[in-house]
Amino acid sequence: MADEVKKGLEGVVVAESELSYIDGDIGKLVYRGYAIEDLSADATYEEVLYLLWHGSLPTREELDTFSETMAEERAVDDYVLEALAELAAVDEAPMAALRSAVSMLSASDPEAETEPQDLEASLRKGRRITAKVPTILAAYQRLRDGEEPLEPKGAALSHAGNFLYMLTGEEPEWVAEETLDMALTLHADHGLNASTFASMVIASTLADTYAAVTGGVGALSGSLHGGANQDVMETLIEVDRSAKDPVEWAKDAIDNGRKIPGFGHRVYNVKDPRAVILEEKSRDLGDASGERKWYDHANKIETYLVEEAGFKEKGLAPNVDFYSGTVYYQLGIPVDMFTPIFAMSRVGGWVAHVLEQLEDNRIMRPRAKYTGETEADWVPIDER
Amino acid sequence: MADEVKKGLEGVVVAESELSYIDGDIGKLVYRGYAIEDLSADATYEEVLYLLWHGSLPTREELDTFSETMAEERAVDDYVLEALAELAAVDEAPMAALRSAVSMLSASDPEAETEPQDLEASLRKGRRITAKVPTILAAYQRLRDGEEPLEPKGAALSHAGNFLYMLTGEEPEWVAEETLDMALTLHADHGLNASTFASMVIASTLADTYAAVTGGVGALSGSLHGGANQDVMETLIEVDRSAKDPVEWAKDAIDNGRKIPGFGHRVYNVKDPRAVILEEKSRDLGDASGERKWYDHANKIETYLVEEAGFKEKGLAPNVDFYSGTVYYQLGIPVDMFTPIFAMSRVGGWVAHVLEQLEDNRIMRPRAKYTGETEADWVPIDER
Repeated sequence: MADEVKKGLEGVVVAESELSYIDGDIGKLVYRGYAIEDLSADATYEEVLYLLWHGSLPTREELDTFSETMAEERAVDDYVLEALAELAAVDEAPMAALRSAVSMLSASDPEAETEPQDLEASLRKGRRITAKVPTILAAYQRLRDGEEPLEPKGAALSHAGNFLYMLTGEEPEWVAEETLDMALTLHADHGLNASTFASMVIASTLADTYAAVTGGVGALSGSLHGGANQDVMETLIEVDRSAKDPVEWAKDAIDNGRKIPGFGHRVYNVKDPRAVILEEKSRDLGDASGERKWYDHANKIETYLVEEAGFKEKGLAPNVDFYSGTVYYQLGIPVDMFTPIFAMSRVGGWVAHVLEQLEDNRIMRPRAKYTGETEADWVPIDER
Repeated sequence: MADEVKKGLEGVVVAESELSYIDGDIGKLVYRGYAIEDLSADATYEEVLYLLWHGSLPTREELDTFSETMAEERAVDDYVLEALAELAAVDEAPMAALRSAVSMLSASDPEAETEPQDLEASLRKGRRITAKVPTILAAYQRLRDGEEPLEPKGAALSHAGNFLYMLTGEEPEWVAEETLDMALTLHADHGLNASTFASMVIASTLADTYAAVTGGVGALSGSLHGGANQDVMETLIEVDRSAKDPVEWAKDAIDNGRKIPGFGHRVYNVKDPRAVILEEKSRDLGDASGERKWYDHANKIETYLVEEAGFKEKGLAPNVDFYSGTVYYQLGIPVDMFTPIFAMSRVGGWVAHVLEQLEDNRIMRPRAKYTGETEADWVPIDER
C-alpha cells in the first residue's frame, strides 16, 4: 500500500483550500461558496478576482479601488514588447510567447526583492501579472498581424473590454465585452487542475509569484489541459468544411476510432456547469448574429454522442472546452488565442492558490517507486 | 482516510522511475544503478546525461558523437542574448533571467511543431536546452559585468570546461574543469525533488519540453530548493567577516534561534553522499590553493552542530548544498551563480523525468480538501 503508485495523483488530497468546490456528481461549481451561475450572471471578472484573492465579495468602493489599481497596472514595459516582437517574427506559439513574457515581467516588478512569505507583496505581484496578461496577449496578436501594439486604456474599460479594445483598436460592443467577462469568470478557478497545481509546486519551494505563474502558463499550454478548447474549434471547423451533417461526421469519427475533444473531465460525471452556461451563450450569440451554425454543429454532435453513441453510459459529458471555443469564435477571436484567453482568466486562480500554499507551506516532494537497477558495477569506458 | 491531506506529498508515490534511487538510511544515491561515488570519480557529465537519457553508459564512440552534437547545439540566438542584455540592465536575478531565456528558446527550436509524445524529438529538445544553459548563464554573467558574451567553443572543450571558458574568457585549468564536471554529475538527478516534479506536472498536460524545463528552473529558484547553496555561502562569508571562531558563531546562531542552511533533507537521515564527496573536494581545493578557511569554517560548523548541538539526534546532517558553495566559491564563481549552476546540471534530470512521464502519461490532477463555504447567497453589490 505504501508503495501504491498514484498515477496522475488521482484522488490524492494535497492541500486544504477555500477557493473552489466542485461536486462532480451534480455538476456544481462554487467559488468561496458562490454558485458559478450567480457569478457568471451577476459579477464582473474583477469582482471574482477580488473574491478569490481577498476572501469576500467587494463593496462598490472596494471594487472601484481594486479595478482602478488593476487598470493602472496594465501597461507592459518596452523590453517585454520588444521580446514579443522578436517572438512574433519567428511565429512563436501564443502560449509560449505568453510564458516568456510573463517570465520577463519579474525584472520590472517594484517589489522584486520581497520574500514570497510576504503574502501582501505576493498578492500585489500576482495582481500585476493578472493586469498585464491581456496587454501581452493583445500586443502579441497585433504584432503577429504586423500591427503596432496599442497602449491599454484606463479604468473606463473593464479588464475584458480593455483586452478587446487592445486586440481590435475599437471599443467593444457591450455584448462582446459582457460575453468575454463571463467567460473569464467561468474559467477563473477550478480546484487543483494541473496548471494550478504546477503553480503550487513551484511556489512551495518559495520561488516567487512570477516563477509560479510562468509554470502555470506552461502547464495550461498542453493539449490535455487548456489546449483542448482550440482542438474543439478546429474540429468544428473541420465538420463545417466537410459539408457533412454533424451527426454523420461524428458517426464516422467514432467509427474511425477518433477521439473527439471537449468531452469528459476527471472531476465531473455529468455535464460541466460551465459548459451549460457557455452553451446558452453560444446559442444566444448565434441567434443575435443570425449565424447559428457553430452552436448547431456543437449541439448536434453533443446530442448524438451523449444520447446515442454511449457517452452518457461512460460518464462522458461536454466539458468547459466544448462550448467556449464557439463563443470566442463568434466574438471574432483567432483560434490560437483561445488557450491564451483561458490563461488570461485562470491566472487569477493560480495566484489565489499560490497565496493559499504560502500561508501554510510545505515543499512538494513526492516519491517515485524505483524500478531500475540498484547495484551496477562500474565499467570504464574503453571496456564497454 | 480518503481525505487525509498529504501536505508536501510526503511519502506519496506518484510514478515509477528507473532514473535514480536514494537510500536515505545509509546515504546511498545511484543513477540507473551506478553509485554516485563511481560516477563522480570516473564519468563526465556528458556520460551521465547519456546514461540518464539513453538508459546505459555510452561506448567511446557513442559518447564522442553525443558530445559533438551537444557542442554543436551550444550557441544561443541573438534574440535571446538581446533579451538577456535587457534583463541584465535592470539587474534581474540570474535564475529569473535563466527562466526567461530558456522559455524563449522554444521559438527557434527546429522541431517546435512536434508532439511531446514523439519521445525522440522531446529528447532532442531537452538536449538542446541542456547544451544552451551554460551559454545563457555565462552570457548573463558577462552582460552583468558590462562585458560582451563569448561564443561557445566546440567539442574540444567539455560541457563544464566550455562554461568556464565562456564565463572567464580563458580556457580553464584542469582542476577547475574537473571539479565543475564532478559537481554537475553530483547534481544531475535526485528522484522527484520539487523542480523535477514541477517539470513532470507540466509535461503531464502534454505541454512541451520547453514549458516543462522552464517550470523546473522556476521551482529550483526557491530558497527551500536550489537557493539553499547560495544561503550557505552567504552564511560562511558572514562567519568569516564576524572574525569569530566558527563554533562560537554557530553557538550564538543556535542561541538566537537562527536556522543554519545546508542541513537536513526529506529523503536522508544520514549525511548526504553528495556532501561527503563535495566536502573532500572542498578540502582538496583549499589545500591546493593554500587557503583552506572556507572548508575549515564549514567543517567546524558541521562538527559542532552534528556532534554537540543535537543535530545528529534530530536526523539533521549536511545536505548537498552545505559544501557545494565552498567548492564553487573556490573556483571563483560569483555566489549568485551557484543556483544557476545547480540548474545547469539538474536540467539533465528534468529532461529524463519528463521523458519517463511521457512514456506512460497521465495528467497530474490531485484534489484539495475544501474547507470553505459551499452555499453562499448572492448579494448584489450595492447591498453589501
